[in-house]
Amino acid sequence: MSVVKPKINGQFKDITLVEPQKVKLDKLSADYKPEEVKKAGKKKAHSFAGEVLEQSREALIEAHEKLWAAKKYGVLIILQGMDTAGKDGTIRHILSGVNPQGCRIQGFKVPTAEEHSHNFLWRYQKVVPARGELVVFNRSHYEDVLAVKVHPEYMEQLPEELSVKKDKKFWDARYEDINAFEKHLARNGIVILKFFLHISKDEQKNRLLERLTIPAKNWKISPADLKERQFWDKYTNAYQDLLSATSNQYAPWVVVPANDKKIARAIIANMIADAINDLDIDFPKLSAQETEALKAAKEQLEQE
Amino acid sequence: MSVVKPKINGQFKDITLVEPQKVKLDKLSADYKPEEVKKAGKKKAHSFAGEVLEQSREALIEAHEKLWAAKKYGVLIILQGMDTAGKDGTIRHILSGVNPQGCRIQGFKVPTAEEHSHNFLWRYQKVVPARGELVVFNRSHYEDVLAVKVHPEYMEQLPEELSVKKDKKFWDARYEDINAFEKHLARNGIVILKFFLHISKDEQKNRLLERLTIPAKNWKISPADLKERQFWDKYTNAYQDLLSATSNQYAPWVVVPANDKKIARAIIANMIADAINDLDIDFPKLSAQETEALKAAKEQLEQE
Repeated sequence: MSVVKPKINGQFKDITLVEPQKVKLDKLSADYKPEEVKKAGKKKAHSFAGEVLEQSREALIEAHEKLWAAKKYGVLIILQGMDTAGKDGTIRHILSGVNPQGCRIQGFKVPTAEEHSHNFLWRYQKVVPARGELVVFNRSHYEDVLAVKVHPEYMEQLPEELSVKKDKKFWDARYEDINAFEKHLARNGIVILKFFLHISKDEQKNRLLERLTIPAKNWKISPADLKERQFWDKYTNAYQDLLSATSNQYAPWVVVPANDKKIARAIIANMIADAINDLDIDFPKLSAQETEALKAAKEQLEQE
Repeated sequence: MSVVKPKINGQFKDITLVEPQKVKLDKLSADYKPEEVKKAGKKKAHSFAGEVLEQSREALIEAHEKLWAAKKYGVLIILQGMDTAGKDGTIRHILSGVNPQGCRIQGFKVPTAEEHSHNFLWRYQKVVPARGELVVFNRSHYEDVLAVKVHPEYMEQLPEELSVKKDKKFWDARYEDINAFEKHLARNGIVILKFFLHISKDEQKNRLLERLTIPAKNWKISPADLKERQFWDKYTNAYQDLLSATSNQYAPWVVVPANDKKIARAIIANMIADAINDLDIDFPKLSAQETEALKAAKEQLEQE
């Protein structure tokens, strides 16, 4: 099958793709601690992550220039994670410096009435990347098998016969639709990478307390966030189900240990830069004729 | 699997859905001639078709009002056919009188550069019906397995590795993507009916000559149409392949004998009206409380 398959060969060898199997998040550490890091200590790990992030950012800026110039492939990055997992900060840090033309961040909030009256993929399908673009979905169509699953009251009004009450395979059908949607994109030149920012429940507590305590961070929190924390286990189950059902070669999930923000950002920046660099693209080359034409134009300008 | 399956129980019993098998269009007559019609003669058949069309139009106007009021299901009608097959005329005749609010015709012309830089389904996915709407695609995503197949030069610039040259299953992958797209819609409450207006090559000749001869019809024809006629056999093959590959219970194809325009329109109007009437919808009912509130409002107004 001809699809774009992102190559994941970053510097974090022990971070692997989610295999289509029963994912258990409590078996996957939210802390990045391979042997070397343990030996070296947190400080050394940080400086390593800092270096990788810097290198990867530079590499990403360059890779994106090629992507945008060639307009051959597009890139779709999907970021998911519990509240406070670090989605916004990751976007800010890894994309700083990337040419804003050819780069787009799509956030998805509570669906509007118009969005709710359509098929659930509609609002995402409309804003997928064109070839040449790098698009980040900050939250995504996966919310339709997450928030809606945890909170049945969020579900759009479907005809009774098609509703989750009547259909035992309702969620499986959604996974199938999502897989087909992403496969279609991959067949049309869109490279898809999906990152789950994995934090522990304790780490979330720390981050929420920080937001409640530091006045400059108060705007980031609402009482709703604290209420959502009560649904931690339900969200974990929903994440496990979707990670197991929707990780494919053409659109793999990476579970990113994200208790340490710096390390998480380094991992993600590194993987994206590598995946783009692995594509068979280069700046468009001019034909001999076009080079001739440019030369003639230059001479004409100089003679003005 | 929970999907909307349109019920086809019209008055034209011998017009059946395309079964997923090898379709041979020369085995399917472009003339509607069941025994009764043959016996009765063309004139009688016409008056029968006229009656059915009138009844069906009335039924469709009413059915659409319910559809629009209930906002539970949406309807997507796909019209395909060779040049001059009668797509525009069908739309004009069967939809006259239908509330234009809640009804939309989407024509698709040569893709723009922006459309070509996206996945091929993108421009169609953006304009699918919301629940409550009746939308007609005048030409559709099927052009991406028709015109593009007959004229490889129309193909968008895909990365080499994903191109039709490199991928032996290229067209099968497109059928798969189309099926998945339509299944997704059917799972979300969109009733899909697809009509292939089947005319004979001789009938096309007559209609082209008419457009060339009658000044008032000249605007409908361009030299390109005559050139397209040379590709009749290639288009026939492409149609046969797609009809075989994409007729499903949730989105069936109907091959409509369309040498006689009036009969074709009657068949289509009748099937659409029937399919909508078969849905479990009605005008929204008020609760006892809401009825009470209306009564109170009425009294208040009268006492002003």
